[in-house]
Amino acid sequence: MTRQQLIEQIREKRSFLCVGLDTDLNKIPEFLLDFEDPIFEFNKQIIEATEDLCVAYKPNSAFYETRGVKGWESLVKTAQQIPNTCLSIIDAKRGDIGNTSAMYASAFFDRNLSGMSFDAITIAPYMGSDSVKPFLEFSDKWVILLALTSNQGSQDFQFSKDLGDEFLFEKVIQKANTWGTIENLMYVVGATRGESFLDIRKHAPDHFLLVPGVGAQGGSLEDVCKYGMNRDCGLLVNASRSILYASSGKDFAEKAREEALAIQKEMALQLEKAGF
Amino acid sequence: MTRQQLIEQIREKRSFLCVGLDTDLNKIPEFLLDFEDPIFEFNKQIIEATEDLCVAYKPNSAFYETRGVKGWESLVKTAQQIPNTCLSIIDAKRGDIGNTSAMYASAFFDRNLSGMSFDAITIAPYMGSDSVKPFLEFSDKWVILLALTSNQGSQDFQFSKDLGDEFLFEKVIQKANTWGTIENLMYVVGATRGESFLDIRKHAPDHFLLVPGVGAQGGSLEDVCKYGMNRDCGLLVNASRSILYASSGKDFAEKAREEALAIQKEMALQLEKAGF
Repeated sequence: MTRQQLIEQIREKRSFLCVGLDTDLNKIPEFLLDFEDPIFEFNKQIIEATEDLCVAYKPNSAFYETRGVKGWESLVKTAQQIPNTCLSIIDAKRGDIGNTSAMYASAFFDRNLSGMSFDAITIAPYMGSDSVKPFLEFSDKWVILLALTSNQGSQDFQFSKDLGDEFLFEKVIQKANTWGTIENLMYVVGATRGESFLDIRKHAPDHFLLVPGVGAQGGSLEDVCKYGMNRDCGLLVNASRSILYASSGKDFAEKAREEALAIQKEMALQLEKAGF
Repeated sequence: MTRQQLIEQIREKRSFLCVGLDTDLNKIPEFLLDFEDPIFEFNKQIIEATEDLCVAYKPNSAFYETRGVKGWESLVKTAQQIPNTCLSIIDAKRGDIGNTSAMYASAFFDRNLSGMSFDAITIAPYMGSDSVKPFLEFSDKWVILLALTSNQGSQDFQFSKDLGDEFLFEKVIQKANTWGTIENLMYVVGATRGESFLDIRKHAPDHFLLVPGVGAQGGSLEDVCKYGMNRDCGLLVNASRSILYASSGKDFAEKAREEALAIQKEMALQLEKAGF
């Protein structure tokens, strides 16, 4: 999915919601356990219930890998279930030396090899340029690079201050801006402190930002929009648990839709306020 | 595998070799393609041919993921094939917020859930403490944290100089030393420049270090030992391509053994020189 197509989806749906498919066998409704692939069945119903309200889906690879081969099967089927009107993001936080990153890229981008063709992948920046560039060589695919994360551990290194008086997360953005463009590169920016977006937007005024940390993880949508929105919206705001586990009964998909709809309505207001 | 058991293996085998199972379907001997699972068959024969000459095996997850569900099946079988006289390392470079890292930990450490029970996993440090700690909660398991990698991109951030006048990779080691112990934490240290080990050993005199970059990637074993070895050896030196692809014929396992034996002999010399 291109940047232009993504912007059109946001415009049509009045939403910049990303639904995180962090699907946990211990949290899905019990009746689904009778299905052959409960994880996939859950995801399928969640997707069918919400696809007109969101512009992206983001399975987190850890939740699938933890179930071994079975989990990987659920992930492949889930990838194929995401409609092409939504950006499909694999939240994998990979990154390795060049030839290995190329392998990860084909694992998630090349359907012929792996059965999966996600539009985007999250990447960890620690190993630098050659760990990121193999992903950027695929056309119409995206790298979503970790910049500032919303967890407590973000304090350990991301806020290391360089001699040049800049935080590590700022340096990551500045460097990565030279590797990719606003057409194939986004940044992960945690939402626990809205003002952080000011620092981010100094370095990446036009990039899309993927924002975790709204919903169960806390963080205010209004603040994120106030400090982070740009003229193309420029935001994908993720919600996972609050939508997925809105109900633990047979009505889980319906309740997930209600929760997604509530967020979409708030997003529509914010888009209107920004004249988008 | 405990630290003591690892040291005993090194002492017995006169080797600190780690064989990297970066197994690529395009590089293995053609006759193996007739097997039901060529990747696993290759790994099995490599392991059988080298297990008395090395103390660790390290499959790189990218090489398996790139083949989708089939690749994951090969990985699970390979994990189960590694003998318990060798440290089994999954080179996965994972790292995410706490609850997600816990999922990754069970993916690679909990056989009951995923079919795999590796002894150790490589982890990327960018997200900080809570991304690493869930792995350290497993007993007799290891985190091998990226500190200084051997690729060109290591220059981008790992050598960022903090206001405190230390490089990022030094800060990573100092922080991580407070999260784990020498019994459950190692560091990845690239071997392209032997003197780098002096900086590492300032901060981690007693830890084991996993050293890629010897063999096809360059780097001198002698230098690594000169600057990096400690009284418990303290080194696991990896070789992948030079062993795996020593021959592309039916004699691949035999030639792999010859290559591993040559490295083991050099290692035995270095251990003797160090009075180990």
